[in-house]
Amino acid sequence: MSETIFAKIIDGTIPCHRVYEDKDVMAFLDINPLSRGHTLLIPKESAETLGELSDRAAEALGRALPRVCRAVCHATGIREYNVLQNNGSGAHQAVMQVHFHIIPKPDVGSGLGVGWPAGNLDAEEGERIAATIREALKAEA
Amino acid sequence: MSETIFAKIIDGTIPCHRVYEDKDVMAFLDINPLSRGHTLLIPKESAETLGELSDRAAEALGRALPRVCRAVCHATGIREYNVLQNNGSGAHQAVMQVHFHIIPKPDVGSGLGVGWPAGNLDAEEGERIAATIREALKAEA
Repeated sequence: MSETIFAKIIDGTIPCHRVYEDKDVMAFLDINPLSRGHTLLIPKESAETLGELSDRAAEALGRALPRVCRAVCHATGIREYNVLQNNGSGAHQAVMQVHFHIIPKPDVGSGLGVGWPAGNLDAEEGERIAATIREALKAEA
Repeated sequence: MSETIFAKIIDGTIPCHRVYEDKDVMAFLDINPLSRGHTLLIPKESAETLGELSDRAAEALGRALPRVCRAVCHATGIREYNVLQNNGSGAHQAVMQVHFHIIPKPDVGSGLGVGWPAGNLDAEEGERIAATIREALKAEA
């Protein structure tokens, strides 16, 4: 993270429109918003992807998310919104430090565009992959 | 939530490919996946939108998110992924109980499609809206 623009925002080298800060997280407006009130929530812990976060940082982000969402809704008057967090440049991550986008959706033409090429889950294939995920999660506990 | 399909999944009335469960959250495969390993993480607490969640449920979701992401990456072998949480039917929410999508992004043609109509934040307008969000967050503390 020491290389990213977000590290410089946290240490105050680069200014931002800050909306929230505690010991673990910080939230500020995206300077290239998809809609009015588009806000970023980031952990202060350095991590490129969500999977690299510690439990402590992840809990702090989880706790802050609904609070920031409520405040963005209150400030914008918009009740619908998307929360997006991208991992990897192939998955649209542009800054290599974990960040959650909170993006108000005022109407069809603005905010986040969502493409949803849904398939159907084959039951056997589903059980196979679910078992592998379950085992990996058990190993974490 | 008593009306949603997720309530029936939690109480076991409707089967699912479950991958994780603790006292606060549950994770299972999406039956209409955007890519192999597409997983849903939900709180057991009943809430339509993220902003309605209690601190406790939100912290539990936050803690579980990186763990489920790591396990999905491990099981699929795919390192890039998107985490999406939609609030309101106009923002693509289909089931009216809070849920996070964890969607592996194996290649450009599959996984989540992201439309990004970014604008530029006017500094004065930014400061105005940031101040309003800040005040709303202070009122929460």
